[in-house]
Amino acid sequence: MAQQDPALLVVSAHAGDFVWRAGGAIASASMRGERAVVVCLSYGERGESASQWLAGKPLEEIKAVRRGEAEAAAAALGAEIEFLDLGDYPLVESEHALHALVDIYRRVQPTVVLTHPLADPYNGDHPAAARMALQARVLAQAIGVVGLDGRAPSVEEIIGAPPVFFFEPHQPEQCDFKPNVLLDITTAFDRKRAAMECLPAQKHMWSYYTDLAVRRGVQVKRNAGPNLGLAHDMRGEAYMRYLPEVTTELH
Amino acid sequence: MAQQDPALLVVSAHAGDFVWRAGGAIASASMRGERAVVVCLSYGERGESASQWLAGKPLEEIKAVRRGEAEAAAAALGAEIEFLDLGDYPLVESEHALHALVDIYRRVQPTVVLTHPLADPYNGDHPAAARMALQARVLAQAIGVVGLDGRAPSVEEIIGAPPVFFFEPHQPEQCDFKPNVLLDITTAFDRKRAAMECLPAQKHMWSYYTDLAVRRGVQVKRNAGPNLGLAHDMRGEAYMRYLPEVTTELH
Amino acid sequence: MAQQDPALLVVSAHAGDFVWRAGGAIASASMRGERAVVVCLSYGERGESASQWLAGKPLEEIKAVRRGEAEAAAAALGAEIEFLDLGDYPLVESEHALHALVDIYRRVQPTVVLTHPLADPYNGDHPAAARMALQARVLAQAIGVVGLDGRAPSVEEIIGAPPVFFFEPHQPEQCDFKPNVLLDITTAFDRKRAAMECLPAQKHMWSYYTDLAVRRGVQVKRNAGPNLGLAHDMRGEAYMRYLPEVTTELH
Amino acid sequence: MAQQDPALLVVSAHAGDFVWRAGGAIASASMRGERAVVVCLSYGERGESASQWLAGKPLEEIKAVRRGEAEAAAAALGAEIEFLDLGDYPLVESEHALHALVDIYRRVQPTVVLTHPLADPYNGDHPAAARMALQARVLAQAIGVVGLDGRAPSVEEIIGAPPVFFFEPHQPEQCDFKPNVLLDITTAFDRKRAAMECLPAQKHMWSYYTDLAVRRGVQVKRNAGPNLGLAHDMRGEAYMRYLPEVTTELH
Amino acid sequence: MAQQDPALLVVSAHAGDFVWRAGGAIASASMRGERAVVVCLSYGERGESASQWLAGKPLEEIKAVRRGEAEAAAAALGAEIEFLDLGDYPLVESEHALHALVDIYRRVQPTVVLTHPLADPYNGDHPAAARMALQARVLAQAIGVVGLDGRAPSVEEIIGAPPVFFFEPHQPEQCDFKPNVLLDITTAFDRKRAAMECLPAQKHMWSYYTDLAVRRGVQVKRNAGPNLGLAHDMRGEAYMRYLPEVTTELH
Amino acid sequence: MAQQDPALLVVSAHAGDFVWRAGGAIASASMRGERAVVVCLSYGERGESASQWLAGKPLEEIKAVRRGEAEAAAAALGAEIEFLDLGDYPLVESEHALHALVDIYRRVQPTVVLTHPLADPYNGDHPAAARMALQARVLAQAIGVVGLDGRAPSVEEIIGAPPVFFFEPHQPEQCDFKPNVLLDITTAFDRKRAAMECLPAQKHMWSYYTDLAVRRGVQVKRNAGPNLGLAHDMRGEAYMRYLPEVTTELH
Repeated sequence: MAQQDPALLVVSAHAGDFVWRAGGAIASASMRGERAVVVCLSYGERGESASQWLAGKPLEEIKAVRRGEAEAAAAALGAEIEFLDLGDYPLVESEHALHALVDIYRRVQPTVVLTHPLADPYNGDHPAAARMALQARVLAQAIGVVGLDGRAPSVEEIIGAPPVFFFEPHQPEQCDFKPNVLLDITTAFDRKRAAMECLPAQKHMWSYYTDLAVRRGVQVKRNAGPNLGLAHDMRGEAYMRYLPEVTTELH
Repeated sequence: MAQQDPALLVVSAHAGDFVWRAGGAIASASMRGERAVVVCLSYGERGESASQWLAGKPLEEIKAVRRGEAEAAAAALGAEIEFLDLGDYPLVESEHALHALVDIYRRVQPTVVLTHPLADPYNGDHPAAARMALQARVLAQAIGVVGLDGRAPSVEEIIGAPPVFFFEPHQPEQCDFKPNVLLDITTAFDRKRAAMECLPAQKHMWSYYTDLAVRRGVQVKRNAGPNLGLAHDMRGEAYMRYLPEVTTELH
Repeated sequence: MAQQDPALLVVSAHAGDFVWRAGGAIASASMRGERAVVVCLSYGERGESASQWLAGKPLEEIKAVRRGEAEAAAAALGAEIEFLDLGDYPLVESEHALHALVDIYRRVQPTVVLTHPLADPYNGDHPAAARMALQARVLAQAIGVVGLDGRAPSVEEIIGAPPVFFFEPHQPEQCDFKPNVLLDITTAFDRKRAAMECLPAQKHMWSYYTDLAVRRGVQVKRNAGPNLGLAHDMRGEAYMRYLPEVTTELH
Repeated sequence: MAQQDPALLVVSAHAGDFVWRAGGAIASASMRGERAVVVCLSYGERGESASQWLAGKPLEEIKAVRRGEAEAAAAALGAEIEFLDLGDYPLVESEHALHALVDIYRRVQPTVVLTHPLADPYNGDHPAAARMALQARVLAQAIGVVGLDGRAPSVEEIIGAPPVFFFEPHQPEQCDFKPNVLLDITTAFDRKRAAMECLPAQKHMWSYYTDLAVRRGVQVKRNAGPNLGLAHDMRGEAYMRYLPEVTTELH
Repeated sequence: MAQQDPALLVVSAHAGDFVWRAGGAIASASMRGERAVVVCLSYGERGESASQWLAGKPLEEIKAVRRGEAEAAAAALGAEIEFLDLGDYPLVESEHALHALVDIYRRVQPTVVLTHPLADPYNGDHPAAARMALQARVLAQAIGVVGLDGRAPSVEEIIGAPPVFFFEPHQPEQCDFKPNVLLDITTAFDRKRAAMECLPAQKHMWSYYTDLAVRRGVQVKRNAGPNLGLAHDMRGEAYMRYLPEVTTELH
Repeated sequence: MAQQDPALLVVSAHAGDFVWRAGGAIASASMRGERAVVVCLSYGERGESASQWLAGKPLEEIKAVRRGEAEAAAAALGAEIEFLDLGDYPLVESEHALHALVDIYRRVQPTVVLTHPLADPYNGDHPAAARMALQARVLAQAIGVVGLDGRAPSVEEIIGAPPVFFFEPHQPEQCDFKPNVLLDITTAFDRKRAAMECLPAQKHMWSYYTDLAVRRGVQVKRNAGPNLGLAHDMRGEAYMRYLPEVTTELH
């Protein structure tokens, strides 16, 4: 595997998930000049587009609307975005989808991966997306696993072992989401808010997730070590690191 | 609270625990030029000195022997060491011990704290030490909590919220020890080995904990992200972070 | 969604499960004049009909026998019953089955849902049934999810968020079944017993589940608050509420 | 045990805890005309009165200030309040404190009990209060357990088995707080807000806990069954039921 | 440590616990000609003697009655019995009690230890007894730990590492009791029943625990491997092994 | 079901897994004169054959090489071996594979079953193998479940309820692997080592798994009861028993 530049890969079940849950991390990465790539496995066309259905719009139009919103939000965050259009409600796991993700892992060579947590009693698509993101990450490490085109990868194409973080679900306690990483997104929050405002159908969520950023910001401050010298008015996002952190220094 | 230099505080139930379990982290800190302070709550005089008892030595002599060994090991690691002489088997929790620890926290102003995990079916002193280390850390943050001398602290004396890591117990799975931090101690390992050799009565442990460092080193390599460029022959120590990590960047 | 009358929906992997595990809840509902609908995903023709196979009966006859017994038991409990005939041992999850269940949810408009718990090392069909029951419940809430006939639902057809309860498995502790609801079925027990007696091939279970009702009845009494004024000779059933209870009063 | 009127007993480690965490439940009870009694085990004089210590006030004055605030907040909620003055940071468990609580249980004859959850890595006084509240509840049920005055209780004085609910800690996920009851406090919220405003030293918490009530209100709505017909703008509090619910009807 | 004959040590919080929960294991041991020793930490005089208190009996008489019953039950099981008279409700942990238990461990040299599980929301004395039984077992292994008389043990007096089993609590699921050992007590059940009948004040428990033995007997049969050739009418008791089993053969 | 001779069945995801993880148990069985049968679901041709892929070998040749190595290792352990060639990375669960396993269970009539644990974040094939092994074990017990050839089994062909043990994964703590059985493989270790040496491509694993055997051997000794009289230099393997042990004697 080649030495890689930093790259953030975000695997999102539906078109809007990455904004509410990981917009701060994405904007932080792009503000540091790093690459960030969002993959939406579906448009959320059936399960998260109620207002469009109530307006009587046809399926393809709904998908186009959701795609446009997600592209605008990604742009506001400074991220690239791709869509696999696998369908939602239910999002069905398949070998085809897995290999499509393997190809993306190998193309992006992520140094950090974000996805949904593995449990969500309110939405089965989220854990399905997470299972595929995790499984594809392991497959992409193996030189014997071919891509969608049936070609074996070169040594440069296989990936290393990038850390995985689960972003926060809507009802964290019911999803066994116990954050072990609190990310300070204070300086990135304006971009996150701008990205949220690209999703007009969910306007009621803007203040909800702004409040959540304040709440997690309070926890950033309370959990910080003595030397961080943090300001009072922080914004935060919560994550669960899935695999052990590797470090040369405890901090 | 004042801005502090890095300082590592290690709370150890018995005289030898810090060597086997956290010697690499301690040596790493001192090799970086940072302060490291070990607090032994007891000498392990009853529960971990079988060969001395079999040799018929009196209690005070056993304590003196264990103290001398621990001082030599701390010196080999580049750490300061203190002894609270609270007795072992059982190590009994008390308000006095708690306030003695509060005073140490305030004096050392640790930026990182290491102690035992909270469960150990083979040794009740270890969780007792951990409970006191954790409780004293919270008390030391409060300006209303007085020290052993009854004096209220100044604003400079209260501590922040230093991160806590549990070091590895002898039978990790039975202690619900699921490492979430793997520390690379490759360059510090020689000092750890030297410290182990300061404990001649437990010579059979030298190879056991050298093997463990190799085992955890293999895991360091397997869990490292793509850009670490690690050598093949790593040494490691495993830790459990107790509270959420606060960070400005996921990595 | 329209304001609905109370309706109980029971999703059962095999033909007999609903009797032993939820007969008291079903009879209680029908005795209150409420609608109760049982859906059997299979007849239990392969995995729970050993005596029929030993007697050399053909598959279709076994299914007919099990169906007849289940219809009689449902009648004894005052419930409607439907069969999806998905096959058992193994009961295979599919999108078709999921959408069939979505249609039932929308037709029944349940205010309470009962199904198996999510773990059972002795019978994989039970968790499979539970997973489908839970997933269909979420899909049936979404206006963008079409039914088996490909038709989008009207606003009246989509369902709300009915509470889900897992009924008791045969070996509760091995299935991580920790009851958080104890249902008093004292007055309904006679009907449950009558339903059990509709299943002659499992005569040895009659006393087993009668004893269990006594055992859970003792726990009803022990966990009741001071004002219930319960009689001595109670009968009970144990349940696990899957999602948070919503209430205007703690009690 | 005698048939009792509804009575809510709240066991709180420090003087202010009951306001932020359970103010809605308390106000709801009093608005229904029910008795509510708050017991503060300490004033929070050392651990939760930083601004007073910084102002150089003596210990007894700090306690008096906290007491006054808590009395005003209880009045705003319509509750009685008592103080055991056991000291905080640390709150030490003792047989004396236990028997004092037994006497209160027998005097109040609670039909519902509220207290802290059993884990809190940020504050050891909270689990200590919970352990005492739970243990005293069991002791108060036993006719052989005497009160502080050494007198054995009459049959009327021993209590039944009132349900226990843990109220929400400051960082719920870190305290293994997984809510299984969401309480609608929409109509009681104004009183809760008024009680919060009785605590001027923690003015920054007013908006924090108002936001939390909105957040839990959103969850009330999302988890409500189809027949609740809830308004859009709900306020909520989250609880964990500690022991199984006993009921005659699943809902 | 000397090679020892089989010896069963049962540490019971109250006078009657060992009968209901472990009577089958005790009778099995004595029927094999092995030594069995029961230690009752208290008589259960306050918490488990309601009928005596209602009859107005004085404390010392209640203790004597409970002692007599327990002695009769132990005799029926073929066991020795000792009483530490530590008091109940609450049973308070102390260093004195711990060392009294250390002396018993060293005197009995148990090859198997039975006690309560570590959680019981209905009775805090049970976990307290378990904690002391476990801690004393570790202390008794250490040659540096002296007995109640202050004398250091000889090498022959220190004990090995006998396996520990938790016996079944009254409401197993609420106590996180997940059995991993099912003991066939079919041939010993008559003696267990006889011992139960030595406890006339709890006559309602006789049938309850007879039913439980049938229930656990059904599970013995269902979980047995193919070669056990078990009869139909089994009796069982459930246990949780606390530490790993050591074996030379998987079976 | 007929009374059967002892037979060990090992279900392994890839060709080499059974050697590293269960070689000691297999060799122990064959040294006792018992039958041992290994089933490899795949050859590990894609995910665990990196050196072959780097050498540019074609897929079929890689499979042949892995098969040859596994046959040699099985022979060194005294075991039979079969290959289902289901493909790896990912190993896909299917009804066909399930019924192939059912046929093997019925042919082998195992008295003990070994397989992977149910969680492994580093390798999804391992849990997939375990799920199929467990599900097939239940199906093979049912007289109504036909084999691959569509024929219903005779009464002699259906199996009993053999105990299942999970063998140790590469990073046990991350796989929630908490051993509850420590197997003494001291006398069988030479055969295990010989089998390891049949896998030349993984030469670096030889010392790793030899060290692990020493480490588990130390735990065998520390957890053994007082009467085992174990030697100092033990070798061990760790297992998790999946279902309750059934026994007539606690030990």
